[in-house]
Amino acid sequence: MADEVRFGRLREAMQRERLDALVCRLPEHVLMLTGYWPLCAWVYAVFPLEGRGVCILPDTEEQEARAELFGTECQTYPFGTKDSPGQEESVLRLLKSAAGGWKRVGWEAGSETSAPAWNAAELQIPSERSRRLLEQAFGLRRLVDASAFLRAEQVVKTPPEIEGVRNANRIATLGIEEFFRRAAPGASGVELVAAVEAAVMAQGTGREGARRVRAFAQVAVGEESARGWRPVQVTTTRRLARGQIALLELAVVADGFWCDRTRARAAGEATPEQREIHALVRKAQAAAIAVVRPGVEAAAVDEAARKVIREGGRDRQFMHITGHGLGYRYHEYAPMIAPGSRDVLQVGMIHSVEPGIYDPAFGGIRIEDDVLVTEGGAEVLAPISSELSG
Amino acid sequence: MADEVRFGRLREAMQRERLDALVCRLPEHVLMLTGYWPLCAWVYAVFPLEGRGVCILPDTEEQEARAELFGTECQTYPFGTKDSPGQEESVLRLLKSAAGGWKRVGWEAGSETSAPAWNAAELQIPSERSRRLLEQAFGLRRLVDASAFLRAEQVVKTPPEIEGVRNANRIATLGIEEFFRRAAPGASGVELVAAVEAAVMAQGTGREGARRVRAFAQVAVGEESARGWRPVQVTTTRRLARGQIALLELAVVADGFWCDRTRARAAGEATPEQREIHALVRKAQAAAIAVVRPGVEAAAVDEAARKVIREGGRDRQFMHITGHGLGYRYHEYAPMIAPGSRDVLQVGMIHSVEPGIYDPAFGGIRIEDDVLVTEGGAEVLAPISSELSG
Repeated sequence: MADEVRFGRLREAMQRERLDALVCRLPEHVLMLTGYWPLCAWVYAVFPLEGRGVCILPDTEEQEARAELFGTECQTYPFGTKDSPGQEESVLRLLKSAAGGWKRVGWEAGSETSAPAWNAAELQIPSERSRRLLEQAFGLRRLVDASAFLRAEQVVKTPPEIEGVRNANRIATLGIEEFFRRAAPGASGVELVAAVEAAVMAQGTGREGARRVRAFAQVAVGEESARGWRPVQVTTTRRLARGQIALLELAVVADGFWCDRTRARAAGEATPEQREIHALVRKAQAAAIAVVRPGVEAAAVDEAARKVIREGGRDRQFMHITGHGLGYRYHEYAPMIAPGSRDVLQVGMIHSVEPGIYDPAFGGIRIEDDVLVTEGGAEVLAPISSELSG
Repeated sequence: MADEVRFGRLREAMQRERLDALVCRLPEHVLMLTGYWPLCAWVYAVFPLEGRGVCILPDTEEQEARAELFGTECQTYPFGTKDSPGQEESVLRLLKSAAGGWKRVGWEAGSETSAPAWNAAELQIPSERSRRLLEQAFGLRRLVDASAFLRAEQVVKTPPEIEGVRNANRIATLGIEEFFRRAAPGASGVELVAAVEAAVMAQGTGREGARRVRAFAQVAVGEESARGWRPVQVTTTRRLARGQIALLELAVVADGFWCDRTRARAAGEATPEQREIHALVRKAQAAAIAVVRPGVEAAAVDEAARKVIREGGRDRQFMHITGHGLGYRYHEYAPMIAPGSRDVLQVGMIHSVEPGIYDPAFGGIRIEDDVLVTEGGAEVLAPISSELSG
């Protein structure tokens, strides 16, 4: 069933930008325009200003697509056997038949970030080769760069999109619970990641109707956690010693929608200093969540968290921003919950709230949850304990 | 330590193509040009015809890069804190200082496939925005599309690259052994995938010195396996019944090098028909491997497998090709071990050999191993049992 709110908003914005059609390849854009999260990214979503959209995809994934596409027409091309004809010829033919005498067609020329397709082990990406194919299909000299347009459209989520991100968050709690059970002296970082990812996939698939679920976890152990503010960690074979911190950073995708969560856990009894830092981070997170409301500046949400940590004398150890948009990706660029951000919160935005403190002396502690901006304030998606020890 | 064979070959080819430098962003190209498999793909590899290469990367991954870069100069830009300046300005400045008055600079304009960076949960991809940045940095009107050049260079592997793929294959056997242990009546597809991926990460990290290991598995259960010829499967919660087939498709990456393996397993006792089909597939694989040798046409390797299956009366149920190159990716385009392929095997090529038979009546069986072309014939990388039952 079509996401009427999404389609209505897209068409309004396309009229403003005088776009006759959008044609996208990146998995997150295909998902937004058709409801289908591709198995592999050899999929084209054609979304015209007027009339029904078309999704062009390999026939090997027709069954999955038909179960997810909302309303969008499904056109397949032969793929994956020894007798399949050239993919570009097939796609060109289908693109031509989908074309509607359009003058201005937008695509992803300037998109430098995307979520992966289901098959995260291999990327198919729209390059200059795709651009030429599209120009040929539509008889146009030059497509319009709609990457900023597409990114802007993703910022405020519609009800089905919110449900998708809520679902990912619910499923992520299965991984967090597994982490809580396993983060004990002797466990290694890679063992914890393996256990968390396995729990999410094995227990999460089928939950709340989710068809395709995957987790990407990172666990920093002991002194590694002091560098846990970095956007990407390398999980190692280091083992937790009693009294050390394990810091779990967890991305979960369910049917194309993402969440981003973090928990810290002490192995055995937490030290008084760890408990103190942990309490400060919890207080900072609560302070930030408390000010979330439509019309509030994102910078004010950041400042609410930062003020608590500043007053605790630790502001130089909270070096990253307080949060970021998310949902179509693990990280989106808006709203940025950061000092100096000019973003203003609106109903339907989803962003992380993730203050942290990192000290070489004791490690790093961050607590991260995803919140939905509602009329009444922040709704924390799938809340779960953030205790430092069990 | 630099891969002198790789660098020598690259420079010879660059001279032929009159390329003064290569500048790449895709993780597999950064790996080939610098030895570093990026944590995230905001990394630029600058590889000049003359002089030392430069790798431009976020300072958050400097430590990992320095441990892996061979000889390449490491230039970092501030990243990931609330005070980090604009990324594009930083990169532009470093690109300018790396530039050497080049006239012809090649980049990835037409690359439509890539392997992910370590952080497979989020893609950073070179778009038209990157192209403009590069053109500005080098004061050029137009960069050269070097995508075909780069792809061609990846086909024949150098000794350290072969060791990388061999390592990935060795580590993959940990996942296959776990699959053999778990593929019993009652196990679900997602449970098997979770267990295999967990085994590879938890036991494989640190093996043979591998720093970063990840598995991407797919398991088709029972009648699902009859569609197991598709390039991408969706693993489900379906449980194995006694006498059914579980078909494991397994990609493993170790420090940026990939392998691709498949095993089939019967839950409990295999039926006579399953054993017969399985024997035919094994015979087909052995026949294909036996003809691998430098100078042999890839099509002849395909035909060797296909002939066995044809003689067994099952050729219409072997609908895919016999193999493909791999190593820098889960799948490479050359050599294509397929009917009509014009590729000719050379020493140092690595490709899969993966005949399969898929029958709605009993399911699908495929056996896949990766082989290295040596002077003496095929070397199967990290061989392991392909028995249908244990």
